[in-house]
Amino acid sequence: MMKLGVCYYPEHWPEDTWEKDAAHMRELGLSVVRVGEFAWSRLEPSRGNFQFDWLHRALDVLHAHKLQVVLGTPTATPPKWLIDEHPSILAVDEHGQTRGFGSRRHYCFSSKIYREECSRIVTRIASEFGSHPSLIAWQTDNEYGCHSTIASYSEDATHQFRHWCRQRYDNIDALNTAWGNVFWSMEYRSFDEVDLPCGAVTELNPAHRLAFWRFSSDQVASFNRLQTDILRQYSPGCDLLHNYMGNFTEFDHYTTAADLDIATWDNYPLGFLDRDGTDLQDQQKWFRTGHPDSSTFHHDLYRGVGRGRMWIIEQQPGPVNWAPHNPAPLDGMVRLWGLEALAHHAEVMSWFRWRQLPYAQEQMHTGLLRADSSEDTAADEIRQLVKDMEVIQQHIPTNVQRESSVAIVFDYSGDHMCRIQPQGNNFEPLQWVLAVYGAIRQCGVNVDIVSTQADLNAYQFVVLANSVSISQSLINSLHKTDATVLIGPRSGSKSEEFSIPDALPPGPLQQLIPLRVVRTESLPDFAELQTGTRSLSAHRWREQIESDITPQSTFDDGWGFSYAHGRFHYLNCCLKPDSLKTYIKDKLITSGIGVMNCDDGLRVSHYGPLTFAFNYGPETATLPDDKKYIIGSASISAGNAAVFLNDSRPS
Amino acid sequence: MMKLGVCYYPEHWPEDTWEKDAAHMRELGLSVVRVGEFAWSRLEPSRGNFQFDWLHRALDVLHAHKLQVVLGTPTATPPKWLIDEHPSILAVDEHGQTRGFGSRRHYCFSSKIYREECSRIVTRIASEFGSHPSLIAWQTDNEYGCHSTIASYSEDATHQFRHWCRQRYDNIDALNTAWGNVFWSMEYRSFDEVDLPCGAVTELNPAHRLAFWRFSSDQVASFNRLQTDILRQYSPGCDLLHNYMGNFTEFDHYTTAADLDIATWDNYPLGFLDRDGTDLQDQQKWFRTGHPDSSTFHHDLYRGVGRGRMWIIEQQPGPVNWAPHNPAPLDGMVRLWGLEALAHHAEVMSWFRWRQLPYAQEQMHTGLLRADSSEDTAADEIRQLVKDMEVIQQHIPTNVQRESSVAIVFDYSGDHMCRIQPQGNNFEPLQWVLAVYGAIRQCGVNVDIVSTQADLNAYQFVVLANSVSISQSLINSLHKTDATVLIGPRSGSKSEEFSIPDALPPGPLQQLIPLRVVRTESLPDFAELQTGTRSLSAHRWREQIESDITPQSTFDDGWGFSYAHGRFHYLNCCLKPDSLKTYIKDKLITSGIGVMNCDDGLRVSHYGPLTFAFNYGPETATLPDDKKYIIGSASISAGNAAVFLNDSRPS
Amino acid sequence: MMKLGVCYYPEHWPEDTWEKDAAHMRELGLSVVRVGEFAWSRLEPSRGNFQFDWLHRALDVLHAHKLQVVLGTPTATPPKWLIDEHPSILAVDEHGQTRGFGSRRHYCFSSKIYREECSRIVTRIASEFGSHPSLIAWQTDNEYGCHSTIASYSEDATHQFRHWCRQRYDNIDALNTAWGNVFWSMEYRSFDEVDLPCGAVTELNPAHRLAFWRFSSDQVASFNRLQTDILRQYSPGCDLLHNYMGNFTEFDHYTTAADLDIATWDNYPLGFLDRDGTDLQDQQKWFRTGHPDSSTFHHDLYRGVGRGRMWIIEQQPGPVNWAPHNPAPLDGMVRLWGLEALAHHAEVMSWFRWRQLPYAQEQMHTGLLRADSSEDTAADEIRQLVKDMEVIQQHIPTNVQRESSVAIVFDYSGDHMCRIQPQGNNFEPLQWVLAVYGAIRQCGVNVDIVSTQADLNAYQFVVLANSVSISQSLINSLHKTDATVLIGPRSGSKSEEFSIPDALPPGPLQQLIPLRVVRTESLPDFAELQTGTRSLSAHRWREQIESDITPQSTFDDGWGFSYAHGRFHYLNCCLKPDSLKTYIKDKLITSGIGVMNCDDGLRVSHYGPLTFAFNYGPETATLPDDKKYIIGSASISAGNAAVFLNDSRPS
Repeated sequence: MMKLGVCYYPEHWPEDTWEKDAAHMRELGLSVVRVGEFAWSRLEPSRGNFQFDWLHRALDVLHAHKLQVVLGTPTATPPKWLIDEHPSILAVDEHGQTRGFGSRRHYCFSSKIYREECSRIVTRIASEFGSHPSLIAWQTDNEYGCHSTIASYSEDATHQFRHWCRQRYDNIDALNTAWGNVFWSMEYRSFDEVDLPCGAVTELNPAHRLAFWRFSSDQVASFNRLQTDILRQYSPGCDLLHNYMGNFTEFDHYTTAADLDIATWDNYPLGFLDRDGTDLQDQQKWFRTGHPDSSTFHHDLYRGVGRGRMWIIEQQPGPVNWAPHNPAPLDGMVRLWGLEALAHHAEVMSWFRWRQLPYAQEQMHTGLLRADSSEDTAADEIRQLVKDMEVIQQHIPTNVQRESSVAIVFDYSGDHMCRIQPQGNNFEPLQWVLAVYGAIRQCGVNVDIVSTQADLNAYQFVVLANSVSISQSLINSLHKTDATVLIGPRSGSKSEEFSIPDALPPGPLQQLIPLRVVRTESLPDFAELQTGTRSLSAHRWREQIESDITPQSTFDDGWGFSYAHGRFHYLNCCLKPDSLKTYIKDKLITSGIGVMNCDDGLRVSHYGPLTFAFNYGPETATLPDDKKYIIGSASISAGNAAVFLNDSRPS
Repeated sequence: MMKLGVCYYPEHWPEDTWEKDAAHMRELGLSVVRVGEFAWSRLEPSRGNFQFDWLHRALDVLHAHKLQVVLGTPTATPPKWLIDEHPSILAVDEHGQTRGFGSRRHYCFSSKIYREECSRIVTRIASEFGSHPSLIAWQTDNEYGCHSTIASYSEDATHQFRHWCRQRYDNIDALNTAWGNVFWSMEYRSFDEVDLPCGAVTELNPAHRLAFWRFSSDQVASFNRLQTDILRQYSPGCDLLHNYMGNFTEFDHYTTAADLDIATWDNYPLGFLDRDGTDLQDQQKWFRTGHPDSSTFHHDLYRGVGRGRMWIIEQQPGPVNWAPHNPAPLDGMVRLWGLEALAHHAEVMSWFRWRQLPYAQEQMHTGLLRADSSEDTAADEIRQLVKDMEVIQQHIPTNVQRESSVAIVFDYSGDHMCRIQPQGNNFEPLQWVLAVYGAIRQCGVNVDIVSTQADLNAYQFVVLANSVSISQSLINSLHKTDATVLIGPRSGSKSEEFSIPDALPPGPLQQLIPLRVVRTESLPDFAELQTGTRSLSAHRWREQIESDITPQSTFDDGWGFSYAHGRFHYLNCCLKPDSLKTYIKDKLITSGIGVMNCDDGLRVSHYGPLTFAFNYGPETATLPDDKKYIIGSASISAGNAAVFLNDSRPS
Repeated sequence: MMKLGVCYYPEHWPEDTWEKDAAHMRELGLSVVRVGEFAWSRLEPSRGNFQFDWLHRALDVLHAHKLQVVLGTPTATPPKWLIDEHPSILAVDEHGQTRGFGSRRHYCFSSKIYREECSRIVTRIASEFGSHPSLIAWQTDNEYGCHSTIASYSEDATHQFRHWCRQRYDNIDALNTAWGNVFWSMEYRSFDEVDLPCGAVTELNPAHRLAFWRFSSDQVASFNRLQTDILRQYSPGCDLLHNYMGNFTEFDHYTTAADLDIATWDNYPLGFLDRDGTDLQDQQKWFRTGHPDSSTFHHDLYRGVGRGRMWIIEQQPGPVNWAPHNPAPLDGMVRLWGLEALAHHAEVMSWFRWRQLPYAQEQMHTGLLRADSSEDTAADEIRQLVKDMEVIQQHIPTNVQRESSVAIVFDYSGDHMCRIQPQGNNFEPLQWVLAVYGAIRQCGVNVDIVSTQADLNAYQFVVLANSVSISQSLINSLHKTDATVLIGPRSGSKSEEFSIPDALPPGPLQQLIPLRVVRTESLPDFAELQTGTRSLSAHRWREQIESDITPQSTFDDGWGFSYAHGRFHYLNCCLKPDSLKTYIKDKLITSGIGVMNCDDGLRVSHYGPLTFAFNYGPETATLPDDKKYIIGSASISAGNAAVFLNDSRPS
């Protein structure tokens, strides 16, 4: 069963409050505490002057209260003395500006000096605390990439990138050919001529940019591995984790996670909604609940990234401070988000943060306690969640397993390609994956999100939503499974090195479905295209197909719409949300998957023998009344949830 | 009675036109002329080569025509030779870019060299012209802060800021504690490690930023004092003034004004409307008149800043050149703005500028004369204004005193805190103060705008609109007065050093009204919240209150709305304009203040025994017809004004 | 008769495809091929290592297939080795950032080193290929100015600009006076003190900026002349051309073209629409056709620039890659655009590009062939165009001459002045010229666009649309012609040195029509002003006139509207499109020009004895049915065209 936890910063509070805080945590039902990330200036106030006692005492207090600890390495915040000693640690932005001290994440992943410094501090901390009895896990650094910190255009990065290119391409002619540098006389004579992709007069070569994204992603992975190698050595048996973010794809998370045991993530449902380009209509609908598919999408994504193990290590408890606007969640949402995480097999849900800090950047970020130590609203909702979990516990087997008949294949590299070359500036690849995910979830079925390397045999329905470049191993997996396969637009449209496949898109997928994409168009927002029957509306992206296959229908101007070849389906456009739901539902039914209609704000998740239902909408939602409800009832008010025994669940 | 004047640049015109210009000014009824600011390259064309004769001759001509002169120091425009000698005079922006020569205000307030140069030129000019018989006042520099020139991130500024921090905090531990630098390992070991707040990866510590705003404001004050000390020495008896701007709060004007005799300001009603984020609906309503509360707000603000003495030293006479669009004022507005200034106790209204200059940056800025010396439209309106003033003169005592029963406490520091940490990006603190001011003005009562140090005993109604951090002296003043006190949202929400008060907001104000703000939310524009009775609409900002006080009503979701404790009222949200007017009107009536309903475009001002009425709206406005009108009548057409004897005025 | 051609890059394709490509081109009816621009890294892979054989072989193949060649100089893409040798070749942007290698146009026009390098490579290529039998023309460089590359703020540019100022003004006092530098103490003591106009605190002197625009334009001209001088020497008899762009006015094209034989341009009707600020309503109407006046406007403009000789050397064949969205053209538009070019006397229409390139920046740009060498949609439309041209050929004389009764005077310098000082930020000078052009074209008459130096005697109606500064020679031309002259707003409003004329605008035009512009206003988009009869709507810009002339009508607030003095008409505002069409139509009729009403999407062009009609609109358009149609019929479907014998054409 999921554990509850909280993020706690003993260094921010007088030592005499620690005992009381720990007791209060236990009283609320919490059992996991994350500490220590960002504390470098207190652990080593000046070079070599290590101050570990206070943290020992803090961990001892937590341990005394049976609280289990996740300890973070403090490498996201190198202190001022270190930056002043080695200013080259700082990252450089694409305009050549140094990204300075004064907040956090002020380092370049390619800085050799910083890697040595991280190695030094992580070794000292790991050897000091690695065997503390409270310790169950280590967190490496904090939110890799937050504040656009994956890419750095420093001298160190230039040097490392050249090295990386040399490793990948062996000789410069191979690089020139791979990138197509004959175009616009971009050819290099040696790897030493290769610069970072920035500062050009106009658009850079997308292959150059993709190489730099790959390099940067690899730099994150090796930076992380540097820490995990040390932590495994000094703290054997502890789980290793990193806290990933929501709506963030700038590096390949699967690669980093290969060195970790658990994928954890930081979930701020209201903050995301107001910051990441959600359209205004959706913002209005969900501004006090978050988007109904956002949390579960990330639960499902990171459960895949973590090879089955997923935590929410930071969870929004009330208004945050960092979005353009910061409304209060609807009453009930803190509990609802907790139940939802449980239903998606989170091992831990941990709120950020224990007590609202009265000073510095995040002073307007609420916690479970207010700054005066009185309980904020979330506390009572957590108490209710604890009670709910006790009820649920009685109805599930010890080792409840995730069951999904649907998989979405998620490919960070495809996401990067679409960002590097959108071709239409309203094509946002993650939004498109979320739209597909939402359409499936509105049919009431569980979804797994898997990597291109995953075994697909267990699924009845598989979707390629952002697989721009297709490996032969993915083709093989798709061959092997019996699932219905839905291939979305842009699939297979590029080679590994960002060029158009010789036989035109969908390239290698032509092994599965015989068609060629002969023309592509991107569309302004005002352009909606109707299929012949006028039942479905496309927007943003459309492809013209040449094939012997008869399309499912045609657009008004004669272009075909949707092609099928046995169990392989090709969708050659983006559909608007309602049309996408209709289309997906039809394909699910074709695949033999039982569907359940979830309207606008209602979502269900199946968890062992139980079905959880969540109402994000403003109106009361109604469920079948012939079920046995162990929590709530067939009538669910706004911001509420119900759980019933699922003897006949759809999928 | 108010004098009329004009800004004049003899150096721009052939010397043989000066006599004619002076005679023409007199003929129009003008008696004050501002000259000399910006003329450095003509007063000292190269180092030490002083050319004062032309200005002597110009002043002599003006004097011969009985025109009184305000002479400006030319320090807003150091000439090229000086910049080339000492490039370090230039300011540096937050991206490290030098802000170069080629326009104006190209200097850093922290440059020691520039302070020496200013001292040198001001001394020479003051000693040369300080006793000229035409001289009545000196203007220091020009529009401090225009074009975002308060903050500079130069090396000089870094050095001076460290010094300032050392003076303020004494030791680095105190600074670290005050700012909360333990957060994100931002701690410094010495003042030499403190950098300016710029260039960080993400949000900087708001306490660090506030300190830099305070420092920058102090730099303006000491820069100004450098000049006033010299001017007082060489020109005893002359008034000292500076021309402040509209819609501008980036430094504390009260501090600077302490060294001056008069606060003057530059009023461009149409230009402001099209540039400063006024919403589109208001722009459409007022694009030929300016916002009906903008001019008077600043008159009232700067009358307070000037300890009762206020001029409009630059006044828009027609289309300007610097707003996104530059329409012509509605016929009559030049006269209307003049009458309005008089009613708000301006000592001088001076138009910018005498003649439209046919070249350089401001060539599209109209004057009283066109470039060919023919009179532009404003001239005849000024003639009418002169006649009006003669009528008014007959009905007022020699020393007419300002009478207001309402005061708004205005706190630059609170404004800065809201800008540094808006928490909701549609919360613009000055707009909020203007909304409060407008709501009161639409009730037909006079308003004073006063500093936090002001004596509040004379008022019946006092509003805290942007008092984010509350001093004990303000608490004492509020205690002492018998006024009804309206405490607005965010009041007392921060300590002096930008942290949340220990007892939660409104902090020290809890001495006056027993309640705690336990949660704050900021709201997107689409979110409007209704109070239970649905009579009032909140937007943008709302606070949840815990208190034994029964709120005036409740919002739909149960949060309380508006709390009163004796004569102290706490408004815990921003209200939309109509709701705010309803709310304020009710409070005014409660305070025993007589109100008069001013509709959309009608405003009234009480001036001794007279009431002035102004019609900004497109339709004819109607006033009580039982009054004795000395100017106009009970029916006021668009862009027109009326003045009646006020034997029974509301407040 | 117009020839057809294509842009081809043999260096991008295996040599064994060249023969097949050439044969395929001929089969499609193409006879002109542009090659070679951008190929520097293949022609000189390292310094002095010239590799010309491959290009010889490519030209030989084309020649064998009777394809005529235009060879481009590769100077738009200096290779990496050259940039690494001489980084000072790179341009610098207005923020001081170097504009680096990695795309194209990475050079500063003022770099002496780069001029020497261009001289060297052009000499070598010209001497090598200048007498190749396939060669008919040379293209200099590629798209001067693309990606904002006219201005550079490098050290070289500073040095050259000072030299240019010295040449123009002779002594620094003259420059100070011309620019009005006494304003804001901007005076210089020597030319060495003059900096480039960038980096100032606020608005720079518009005269300073205009001088820099003139200088930059002159630098383009001399850079181009450097190449044309060499090409004429080594390749006598070949035409010289450059490919200008659409919607681009940043340098004076007439000056550059004086050294060329033909003005060619690059026409992307759909790409332009989605990128250059076209309003949303127009984007919706024309997103699959392009704006109906955009292509012909540029045909007419560049025919004038080329002194009668004009090509379209790059023409859009399908979706492009570089606009915000890239939709497919409506079926038929490729043919329509071809017929339209023919009717506007294009000598060549050449598509960009032969085959879609599967890699690098432009991989999503369609060609006549797809990346797999199959024909894309455009190919069949070209076949139809070839057939149409055969029909047309039979009805026109050998040397068909352009006939237009209307001329628009186009002045790049006026365009620059409006951009430097818009005064209203919705005044876009090229949009205004296009609006005037469109209003005339909707009356069914041919328009020439001519320089201020043109002989105007042949015209019945002449419009000054962007003649901000008026030369006496233009006044003389206007005197000499008998045409009705329409003088638009802002005409004559500035002197040559960017100041207001002594006698006020329209300055020298007062010799033709006795009036003075005494006030100017710019208006926000929401403000529409009605003339007294309410039949016409003005927006954006309006001028108040003093004159003895009775205006045509008056605005609601009393300002006059439209003034006539004999055959000289002054329009003192911008009119909205429908009103402008009504107004222009009336003036055309007054001038004795026969008009024909073209509705929204219908346009006609008269070509010798033929009239071409084009339907850009979504509905079928209807023409007179009493004409003899040689192509199409009186009923023209969307995206279609018709051609009839014109025995009674309107103009």
